[in-house]
Amino acid sequence: MSVWEQIDQPVLLIDEAIARANIERMAERAKERAVTFRPHFKTHQSAQIGEWFREAGVEKITVSSVEMAEYFANHGWKDILIAFSMNPRQTKRINALARRVHLGILIENMDVLPPIYLFGVEPLDVWLKVDVGNGRTGVDWQDKKGLHEICEVVTRIPRLRLTGLLTHSGHSYHAGSPEVVNIIFREGVDRLNQLRDDLEAAGFSGLKVSVGDTPGCSLCEDWSGIDEVRPGNFVLYDAQQANEGSCEIENIAVALACPVVAKHPTRREVVVYGGAIHLSKDYLEVEGIISYGLPALVRNDCWGDPIPYARVDRLSQEHGILWIPGPEFEQIAVGDLVCILPAHSCLTVQSMGDYLSLNGEKITTFNKKAA
Amino acid sequence: MSVWEQIDQPVLLIDEAIARANIERMAERAKERAVTFRPHFKTHQSAQIGEWFREAGVEKITVSSVEMAEYFANHGWKDILIAFSMNPRQTKRINALARRVHLGILIENMDVLPPIYLFGVEPLDVWLKVDVGNGRTGVDWQDKKGLHEICEVVTRIPRLRLTGLLTHSGHSYHAGSPEVVNIIFREGVDRLNQLRDDLEAAGFSGLKVSVGDTPGCSLCEDWSGIDEVRPGNFVLYDAQQANEGSCEIENIAVALACPVVAKHPTRREVVVYGGAIHLSKDYLEVEGIISYGLPALVRNDCWGDPIPYARVDRLSQEHGILWIPGPEFEQIAVGDLVCILPAHSCLTVQSMGDYLSLNGEKITTFNKKAA
Repeated sequence: MSVWEQIDQPVLLIDEAIARANIERMAERAKERAVTFRPHFKTHQSAQIGEWFREAGVEKITVSSVEMAEYFANHGWKDILIAFSMNPRQTKRINALARRVHLGILIENMDVLPPIYLFGVEPLDVWLKVDVGNGRTGVDWQDKKGLHEICEVVTRIPRLRLTGLLTHSGHSYHAGSPEVVNIIFREGVDRLNQLRDDLEAAGFSGLKVSVGDTPGCSLCEDWSGIDEVRPGNFVLYDAQQANEGSCEIENIAVALACPVVAKHPTRREVVVYGGAIHLSKDYLEVEGIISYGLPALVRNDCWGDPIPYARVDRLSQEHGILWIPGPEFEQIAVGDLVCILPAHSCLTVQSMGDYLSLNGEKITTFNKKAA
Repeated sequence: MSVWEQIDQPVLLIDEAIARANIERMAERAKERAVTFRPHFKTHQSAQIGEWFREAGVEKITVSSVEMAEYFANHGWKDILIAFSMNPRQTKRINALARRVHLGILIENMDVLPPIYLFGVEPLDVWLKVDVGNGRTGVDWQDKKGLHEICEVVTRIPRLRLTGLLTHSGHSYHAGSPEVVNIIFREGVDRLNQLRDDLEAAGFSGLKVSVGDTPGCSLCEDWSGIDEVRPGNFVLYDAQQANEGSCEIENIAVALACPVVAKHPTRREVVVYGGAIHLSKDYLEVEGIISYGLPALVRNDCWGDPIPYARVDRLSQEHGILWIPGPEFEQIAVGDLVCILPAHSCLTVQSMGDYLSLNGEKITTFNKKAA
């Protein structure tokens, strides 16, 4: 039975060969530059896909929650960074985890240190979360006084190892061009290095610099001043990343297969079973027009290229409305499948909870559904 | 232990008393008008919450997928309408389900009838899905020829019971005022009644009229010409519905409790653990400004009113960035909880997978997580 015949509801397909090539390429980029590769696992969220990383030589990983750290610790990972500002309500869970694995956390304010001091008995790597311009979270890179103070307190708590300076240049996702991605990437690295020099002069020595965004790590060649990279999305990529130039369409490793349930020829619209609860409501903009993904026809054993000029025009809970202006509209029948390259693969993986490989194998995630 | 003390990660709280009052009110509206109440269960998605409906006298339900129909059939529901255009790839599952329960399906094109004819052996209610102006899916209400043809074929297949005309006036969700909701609601009902008369004249008699949107069923008093209503969102309501005037803020039955992990005073921003993977990326617009929900402070045993002028300004995968311009900013500390009334409760429930009641009881859904 082909993979297509067994699909009767929305299914997230993964092309293992593409994902493995994406992993290999990024691992190679880090190796060539002698930079530690600590990939972010929040995109794929899967113990099985984690093994593909292990086969590419990865031993250190990044996750985005304590819950996800627990999952990967249960699957044999021994060196985990929780790249989310320390949540003091989870101090006991963090401490329990630190008993089992080499654990890193992010600190961006002093308020979370007393609970660690009170409850913590296990050693922890502490990274200072620095905002180099993204404006989401972290200590402002210009707030030297604030950063010195945190370093001062951290170094006085014996079990905390002040490890380095970490940022996420999330503003690179909307940079608009590879040139601007490069500027944002280097600006972030340079700001962290300035800070490192300042802190070194103040007696806090040996600090590492960690950066993370997929656009920067995919497109920028100069990694000087970086000790560790933490990209995540690159393993799957998606339509947003292709649209921003971080990857080619053929590097996208996932597509949502959706049954066609209706056609409306006067509007050139195809209605699929596949909506906001499968793709998420994230979108990309092409020439000012929003699309919730890129529709593609199925081929023998994989999905094809995106249909030219087509878009996922609207999503409701279970419905996806595709606009197909070209002759492909006539090639699609009710009962067929259409594939959608997701706008944002991280959120689509989270929504779906598991994958189907092109050879019909189910691949589960941290977030798999009970049913 | 209070419900607040046990929360260390984003949790979807449900106020059972509010939800039960919402159910009671809508059941009463239908009863007063002698209209069948077939609530849509896609919003709450929970067998336990389904029991609250049963206690209010509900016996017939609506769902949005075959999978959800199977779940509720497994929880004792015997009369289920799958309000999603027939997906021919699920014909065998539909047939298996029709062996166990009184089942209804939606038809909007002829292409799906041959698979039913070939595989179907169980009786099915068939509703014609009519587009009365929403422009999402269904046969255009003006396409009388198309509707006659479908009726003709359906009545020739012995096990199919041509039951009625059904629409979802989804455009009422963005009507902007109760007056416009009323116009859209009545327009839809009137168009279905015109069609019913036409089809009656053509020999297709006894057809019912079914309508469904929460704004219309909440706000409109005149239900003449309606046999069945299928609202769903009203059980929980949400910030979008309150913003459109379909409910009051105090009718909203759910809120996402989120740990505070950082504050950025110069930007008046509070960073919470609670992002797109919890709330979904759906939003409301208030005076042209987007918000992904309404932040509220916690009270002793429930959440409070929305914080004036505050908004959920940005969401990333796990982060929510709240903008709190008023004095409430100073009342919030790292380590506290803040509640967020979701923009769109259906998608938040889907993202979260289960609820916590205010007395600390876990309430699971169809979509519950395995972990």
